[in-house]
Amino acid sequence: MSSQWGTLFRVSTFGESHCYGVGATVDGCPPGLALTEDDIQPQLSRRRPGQSAIATPRNEADQVRILSGTENGVTLGTPIGLLVRNQDQRPGDYQDMRRVPRPSHADYSYQMKYGIRASSGGGRSSARETIGRVAAGAIADKFLQTAFGIEIVAWVQAVGERVTHEVDHTTVTRAEVDQTIIRCPDTRVAPGMEADIRAAREAGDSIGGVVMCVCRNVPAGWGEPVFDKLEAMLARAMLSIPATKGFEIGSGFAGSTMRGSQHNDPFVMKAHGLGTSSNRSGGVQGGISNGEPVVFRVAFKPPATISRPQSTVDFDGNAVELAAAGRHDPCVVNRAVPIVEAMAALVLADSALRQHASTLLRSITQQP
Amino acid sequence: MSSQWGTLFRVSTFGESHCYGVGATVDGCPPGLALTEDDIQPQLSRRRPGQSAIATPRNEADQVRILSGTENGVTLGTPIGLLVRNQDQRPGDYQDMRRVPRPSHADYSYQMKYGIRASSGGGRSSARETIGRVAAGAIADKFLQTAFGIEIVAWVQAVGERVTHEVDHTTVTRAEVDQTIIRCPDTRVAPGMEADIRAAREAGDSIGGVVMCVCRNVPAGWGEPVFDKLEAMLARAMLSIPATKGFEIGSGFAGSTMRGSQHNDPFVMKAHGLGTSSNRSGGVQGGISNGEPVVFRVAFKPPATISRPQSTVDFDGNAVELAAAGRHDPCVVNRAVPIVEAMAALVLADSALRQHASTLLRSITQQP
Amino acid sequence: MSSQWGTLFRVSTFGESHCYGVGATVDGCPPGLALTEDDIQPQLSRRRPGQSAIATPRNEADQVRILSGTENGVTLGTPIGLLVRNQDQRPGDYQDMRRVPRPSHADYSYQMKYGIRASSGGGRSSARETIGRVAAGAIADKFLQTAFGIEIVAWVQAVGERVTHEVDHTTVTRAEVDQTIIRCPDTRVAPGMEADIRAAREAGDSIGGVVMCVCRNVPAGWGEPVFDKLEAMLARAMLSIPATKGFEIGSGFAGSTMRGSQHNDPFVMKAHGLGTSSNRSGGVQGGISNGEPVVFRVAFKPPATISRPQSTVDFDGNAVELAAAGRHDPCVVNRAVPIVEAMAALVLADSALRQHASTLLRSITQQP
Amino acid sequence: MSSQWGTLFRVSTFGESHCYGVGATVDGCPPGLALTEDDIQPQLSRRRPGQSAIATPRNEADQVRILSGTENGVTLGTPIGLLVRNQDQRPGDYQDMRRVPRPSHADYSYQMKYGIRASSGGGRSSARETIGRVAAGAIADKFLQTAFGIEIVAWVQAVGERVTHEVDHTTVTRAEVDQTIIRCPDTRVAPGMEADIRAAREAGDSIGGVVMCVCRNVPAGWGEPVFDKLEAMLARAMLSIPATKGFEIGSGFAGSTMRGSQHNDPFVMKAHGLGTSSNRSGGVQGGISNGEPVVFRVAFKPPATISRPQSTVDFDGNAVELAAAGRHDPCVVNRAVPIVEAMAALVLADSALRQHASTLLRSITQQP
Repeated sequence: MSSQWGTLFRVSTFGESHCYGVGATVDGCPPGLALTEDDIQPQLSRRRPGQSAIATPRNEADQVRILSGTENGVTLGTPIGLLVRNQDQRPGDYQDMRRVPRPSHADYSYQMKYGIRASSGGGRSSARETIGRVAAGAIADKFLQTAFGIEIVAWVQAVGERVTHEVDHTTVTRAEVDQTIIRCPDTRVAPGMEADIRAAREAGDSIGGVVMCVCRNVPAGWGEPVFDKLEAMLARAMLSIPATKGFEIGSGFAGSTMRGSQHNDPFVMKAHGLGTSSNRSGGVQGGISNGEPVVFRVAFKPPATISRPQSTVDFDGNAVELAAAGRHDPCVVNRAVPIVEAMAALVLADSALRQHASTLLRSITQQP
Repeated sequence: MSSQWGTLFRVSTFGESHCYGVGATVDGCPPGLALTEDDIQPQLSRRRPGQSAIATPRNEADQVRILSGTENGVTLGTPIGLLVRNQDQRPGDYQDMRRVPRPSHADYSYQMKYGIRASSGGGRSSARETIGRVAAGAIADKFLQTAFGIEIVAWVQAVGERVTHEVDHTTVTRAEVDQTIIRCPDTRVAPGMEADIRAAREAGDSIGGVVMCVCRNVPAGWGEPVFDKLEAMLARAMLSIPATKGFEIGSGFAGSTMRGSQHNDPFVMKAHGLGTSSNRSGGVQGGISNGEPVVFRVAFKPPATISRPQSTVDFDGNAVELAAAGRHDPCVVNRAVPIVEAMAALVLADSALRQHASTLLRSITQQP
Repeated sequence: MSSQWGTLFRVSTFGESHCYGVGATVDGCPPGLALTEDDIQPQLSRRRPGQSAIATPRNEADQVRILSGTENGVTLGTPIGLLVRNQDQRPGDYQDMRRVPRPSHADYSYQMKYGIRASSGGGRSSARETIGRVAAGAIADKFLQTAFGIEIVAWVQAVGERVTHEVDHTTVTRAEVDQTIIRCPDTRVAPGMEADIRAAREAGDSIGGVVMCVCRNVPAGWGEPVFDKLEAMLARAMLSIPATKGFEIGSGFAGSTMRGSQHNDPFVMKAHGLGTSSNRSGGVQGGISNGEPVVFRVAFKPPATISRPQSTVDFDGNAVELAAAGRHDPCVVNRAVPIVEAMAALVLADSALRQHASTLLRSITQQP
Repeated sequence: MSSQWGTLFRVSTFGESHCYGVGATVDGCPPGLALTEDDIQPQLSRRRPGQSAIATPRNEADQVRILSGTENGVTLGTPIGLLVRNQDQRPGDYQDMRRVPRPSHADYSYQMKYGIRASSGGGRSSARETIGRVAAGAIADKFLQTAFGIEIVAWVQAVGERVTHEVDHTTVTRAEVDQTIIRCPDTRVAPGMEADIRAAREAGDSIGGVVMCVCRNVPAGWGEPVFDKLEAMLARAMLSIPATKGFEIGSGFAGSTMRGSQHNDPFVMKAHGLGTSSNRSGGVQGGISNGEPVVFRVAFKPPATISRPQSTVDFDGNAVELAAAGRHDPCVVNRAVPIVEAMAALVLADSALRQHASTLLRSITQQP
């Protein structure tokens, strides 16, 4: 188990689907940041289940409490403890699944790894694990907004085969994203996406999708070559989210089909200094931000838990038909939007502090 | 700068394109492993430039020397120092580029990050940086083969638009991969790939591609949820390689278009225990290996440095036409094959040790 | 702020003197360990204030709750969240100290570091910070007992000038230590120690002391040269405890006055294999445990907060007489006993897992 | 094995007593620092053997080469590779010791840990391991001098029972320290120390001692509570040096015998702001530097390898008389002086960067 993230902006998360609570500790958030539960709750509320007909009906208030690290609404520089209680637990829902590992779920691999696993729900592989990330990410987000005016906005780009390329990543806002339940700001495509999800649910099935994300106003110079390149840490962050199967930055796999003369982003003079006239690099060059928007996409597979019967075997190898009970999302992408944003914020906050550290000598020698 | 990798199997690399040498230190390799330079050199030789008409003519012997950590051809458990000398340096080739940042290269972002950069070649962003990884990865590879019989094989799946889906990942070998210069084991596609690269070079241009990789015989149970999931660490490892833009495990982005009933991998009884009849999961479920082959793909953009003139601006914002001199690969994927294998080996070796640590209590309590 | 500890057995703590609660997350505790609050509470209760006339009258129940990571009293291998509520807060006690940094306390250095500090008590520098360590350490302790039969026992060796050399570290137990309030198992010396503490309190003063600790049944081979040597990590662990000024292992500073022929521990044959006939090494040689008891001492200064008036200056440099209000320990060593044990347990648990990891190759190749 | 140090200013060392070479990689040194081999060599030369009649006659030039990370004598921000060749190797000297573990040396514990060990000398437990630290520390030292004017000076305070308390830590320089071979700046005590060492050598014996160290001009605010407190990291750093048995900061163990009213350091107004009129805290309060000199002491045991016969047993438990051949120091403290300085520099350089990172928000919000 490795539930710690970050070199300087460090997060440690905890919590299963059916324990007392889930949460996180943020260690290394700079002192002097205005911070209350009101800065954290909105992203948790965007993430929580039971919001709509296209998500799991599990109903959780998911109210966060700051346990430590602030006083009078300002961070002290000390660890910020965060706790969200688990409430709507129905362990009984899962009892049939004890002896049958769900296909493409984590039941089997957790059992093989730990020799034990939570008896209900997904345990630590449950989506409730992501609460700690979202809470911690909201603090990183506040820090990045405050210090740099950074805007991180994710949205649903695709559900199954339906996809939009019409979202302007230079302007899209969270408010625009939240206009539809599916969190796709292209309102011509969103209804079809929602219909497809409802159809999948009615068929006892699930469906995959793609979340796209932009980080605007990231200064040039963030990211630590060679192993902690900005895109490397973003890739790790995104592939650590449950149900993800792929990551692309900038041109992504499409870039692999291009010629250099087509793909290169020419430099041009912009108001603040050098910029690029195109952004196939996705805002990073050589593992370091170049001042252009950081743009990336994350592929989510269809959720593994479906009520439609599947032919599989139990832990002893006996053939069974499995039809999952419990409450499950037929599609995770709309709830994944704040999770993607949170993980992006954690990557950027750590990068910001690391880059600031590396400028120590320059900041001293450049003084008069 | 962050040139350290790993929690237990730890690597620290160093070296620019035009310094005394490049290399790595491997700290945490288990004692008692048979190891000489002969275990490391083959992968370095596969990586080195000047091997063929489709790669950079820079000619480097790239002979590795083990500086420490072994005695009589066996590891001592102490840090293994590794050094490869730089020899064929032609700094003069790059002098025109001092004042013009190459589009989509790291010149600009390095300058913004560090306030200084190597005057020649790419400095630390040069492909020579990867020598340290490949040398260290070869040690990880030897360890994994010795302890678990793990086979890691990467190959070129696509160059530009040419792609093969005919490689059997359950059997493909490095020898088969090396049958063609382009390292694509599908000999019907390989000649076209090579022709496309030659055409790009002749046009003063470059071209992208895709490397696919399989890791066979990985035991179930490796990978550390939640932030160090196996696919997360693989994604980070791959996106830390120069010129990468995307990562997919198993079904990848295609998985996002599927229904759960299509995507799920049913469990079946196999000789060694439970397995799955399909492998859209790519060998990982919930961030943990499930005993099936670990299969992933990595997208490489076309190299940024091209001799064809590009309209861009210099550091001061003045419009210039840039036509790069120097020796450069028109396509990196064939040389990337051993780099991808090396990074996969580093991820797996660290995962192996971490998982072994976590079984301490079971190994004691299960004793008679 | 850096409130994370450990490479594999990882702890992240949080909490100030006057916030909602204090606690910790333990990430990396092996799965399958029997664990309930009853395993943790005893050490917290030994640490808590208000137990006797020689400690601070602040009264805290310090009841711990396990938030996650266990099911049916067994660890799952997932992070173990731990929470203790703060209850008996009297912020008003400290208001006079806002403008005057207490001499030899952390008020001034925290202010210089963070540019802000908790308005009451010591904030994160308060002794309440140690609750997270003690709770986490109790889990490490249970793991070490279960897996190896390790016994960690600390006791008060000195208060001020009063010192005992009569405690037999090969047999002393926590029960014997707890026979006196001062936690000195030498009952001829203990009453004088307690009297000296009472005298210091009555004089509005405080007094220092020494805690000694033994770890029995530590297998040979633990500790990671060169930077994570066992004594190095123990030294770091002990010097991270508030109010500590020194650390000695084995012969310590006295060893510096000896000749090698006097100091060396000759090897002898023992029941389980090689051992040493003396133990001036303190159970470690070359940074690695040698199978003998690990024995070390920790120096604690007199607590900085005293009610006796002190001539000092306020933050603006104005001369003031400071007489501290609030509730404070006149001597910390007896309450430090479980803290020292906890930190020793955290060091050893991490060392155990790291050493187990490094034996992977041997465990495989030695199989038939 | 754990040969990596640091969170931001990261060092990875390698090398045994009888391999090709020893060295280190420094990752995270800020770019723009003037640095050549001439900045590193002096401390290596102070550390090297064969300098005088009171040290081992092993003769090594110990010339360092910078392998990477600088150009035109300035750091690039990339990893700095460092290599020193081993030359004067006489493996044959040690062959008798293969079957007999030297008492209080690392032979036995290395064998138990790794199941293998270097056949000659101490392998990684040899004093040659410290070359990597000293080379890396010299870079940290240059950085600290350049950025903050920090002066780190260590000296021999005691050899056996001979001790000086007459060295003024506010003014003592390395030049003064080097006036005597024993590196004790109190010239009334130094000759006796040297005589005692010669006497020990002539008796085929060895002798211990104490090194004291001061770090001047350390700004207030360095050190990361709670687990990476400045004194905690110093204690770890010092106890990671071979042959160390104890660490004290400020008042140390003597502080444990004092009353708070005697021990507290009153604040006073100084030229630069608040300071303290005494310094029993040793420059740290609550784990954070307070602007006063950081002062600490390190105890070294007598070297374990002595030529005088010792009664012990071989690995099989057979009684033997061991009289060590080979070339060994009768006392390590004078050669330990630059090692202590190096480790102090590594701790401070990392602390400097971490503290600078944490001020990011303040540096932005305080701008006009």
